[in-house]
Amino acid sequence: MKKKTTIYDIAKALNITVSTVSRALNDFPTISKATKNAVLETAKTLNYTPNKLATALKLGKTNIIGVIVPTVQASFFASVINSLEDGLKDKGYRIILYQSNESLAKEINGVKALLEAQVDGIIASMSLETNETNHFEEVVKQNKPLILFDRVNKSFGVPTVTLDDFMAGYIATQHLIDKGYKKIALLTTVHQIKIFSDRLQGYKKALLDNNLEIIDEFIIYGGLSIKDGRFGVGKLMRKKNKPDAIVAGDDFTALGAIKKLIEIGETPPKIGVIGFSNEGFSAYITPNLSTIDQHANEMGKECAKMFLKMIQQGNPYDEVSHTVLTPTVIDRESTGRIYK
Amino acid sequence: MKKKTTIYDIAKALNITVSTVSRALNDFPTISKATKNAVLETAKTLNYTPNKLATALKLGKTNIIGVIVPTVQASFFASVINSLEDGLKDKGYRIILYQSNESLAKEINGVKALLEAQVDGIIASMSLETNETNHFEEVVKQNKPLILFDRVNKSFGVPTVTLDDFMAGYIATQHLIDKGYKKIALLTTVHQIKIFSDRLQGYKKALLDNNLEIIDEFIIYGGLSIKDGRFGVGKLMRKKNKPDAIVAGDDFTALGAIKKLIEIGETPPKIGVIGFSNEGFSAYITPNLSTIDQHANEMGKECAKMFLKMIQQGNPYDEVSHTVLTPTVIDRESTGRIYK
Repeated sequence: MKKKTTIYDIAKALNITVSTVSRALNDFPTISKATKNAVLETAKTLNYTPNKLATALKLGKTNIIGVIVPTVQASFFASVINSLEDGLKDKGYRIILYQSNESLAKEINGVKALLEAQVDGIIASMSLETNETNHFEEVVKQNKPLILFDRVNKSFGVPTVTLDDFMAGYIATQHLIDKGYKKIALLTTVHQIKIFSDRLQGYKKALLDNNLEIIDEFIIYGGLSIKDGRFGVGKLMRKKNKPDAIVAGDDFTALGAIKKLIEIGETPPKIGVIGFSNEGFSAYITPNLSTIDQHANEMGKECAKMFLKMIQQGNPYDEVSHTVLTPTVIDRESTGRIYK
Repeated sequence: MKKKTTIYDIAKALNITVSTVSRALNDFPTISKATKNAVLETAKTLNYTPNKLATALKLGKTNIIGVIVPTVQASFFASVINSLEDGLKDKGYRIILYQSNESLAKEINGVKALLEAQVDGIIASMSLETNETNHFEEVVKQNKPLILFDRVNKSFGVPTVTLDDFMAGYIATQHLIDKGYKKIALLTTVHQIKIFSDRLQGYKKALLDNNLEIIDEFIIYGGLSIKDGRFGVGKLMRKKNKPDAIVAGDDFTALGAIKKLIEIGETPPKIGVIGFSNEGFSAYITPNLSTIDQHANEMGKECAKMFLKMIQQGNPYDEVSHTVLTPTVIDRESTGRIYK
């Protein structure tokens, strides 16, 4: 019995990707008439009969997109996901989610799981541990759209949607300076993630632009959590030279900082506190929390637009674009110093 | 050319499920030696040669479990998911998530998407709109484990993990009575979901047991959101006969109620407010919110245990059990009335 012709043979004969062959056979509008004709011609010559199962499961469109986020428990990621869904539902796409829980190993597993689940593409934000992109290469190899957002590696060569994190660090610090604070500390993470180093640079630049000294012991490298916020404040307020305001790595860290400051009688805005990402609780705590709006909805919308563009342009990586969103300050009580 | 033998033919010949055949061929420890031998014998007789693709994609184990929740933006569901992951990771299972966004249509799509994604089973909590179980039947038909949790339909015949919602409604109301409140209103949902009707019954029973009148106009049927909480309080406080405490349908609704009460000068605990589900913000708002602990971590753990049991018992539906967890009150400022 002669070996059955598969679409791999057609792809090989024409020197095009298997996914293009699959799309041509399924009459996708994104594939040119010329390619379709060539594929059909070759399929005929090689005596190809489609294997429904293989087509549907292995190469066809499932209309499912995989989304990998560090955690769904952060409002930011939950909001991105919801606006992504909004942007894709009209085109018939459904989303399945995978949490990396800030672990590289889990992220690697997630990419595998989603590819096994036959997703049409992956939209991902990297874990705090992720310092490589090897595990994402299989997505690109399969010629499926891969978009990285928020926490990305731009040198990897796939499209990205990010916030201008340098500007985020800058405007958070400038906001405190505008309110009259002068000795501004930063609670950031030990992890070598670009968004945090960018924010650190923005923080430093804002201080410099305002002729304020960069004080090394005011920069605390820890984790990002309520506990870390408490711990960071404890560390800062035991120093001889104390800060009068704090830029916290995220709203959870800011919440911990506020709780600790209240306990030691330095209730914000006496000591100013600003966070990042406008979590659901931030408007409702006391004092309510000034923070940086990372425009999660816009980020989800941009990812959806980018994904649809990648699908439409046939080869998703023909044109790789990087969208950068502009952060804004949300001014609330925790930075509302009344004296200068 | 003779039609190729598939595992469907083996299943038919032996009158067992396709999934059992698949498991037998893959030497699963959950399949008896006798079944394995019968399957191998029949496979030989029918001249079966395994189709790797079909085995792996269509019938094999992917070690991926699909989880459907109304939204990941509620702490309750996010916590259940995290403890589920914890309980399953040691066994090599990974979880992919799907949000129904409280829509039956989306939930139906989700079941389809997850089955297409070849999940080994589904663990789901029903949307507010879900009044039928037809869309879940395909999971059972494929002999894959299906567990419903929190929002369930027990008459459907699949295993469930739930909270004792009657007791939740009862203890929330009793807590307010213990604190000296006597005219207790309830903000609940219009949706015909069992957990809410159970809580309503618990609320009524607690009033009766304390010789307090059930006042129909104190029971407000609306949605569950910050906006609905504000709206409900507005409606209640315009009445001639005003309540002195409110059992809110969830913590978001309670938060809206508190905001509105503060605005009209009836800041809790002057009017008592208790919520349900201990959202992340509930401990941090002012006044902080008394609420019902729905034991999300325990619920996730129980779902994980149940899933593993279903996998191990060969036929997942050989033994169908229902686990019911006991709610507890978290006593905070919003119900802390100082006079009786």
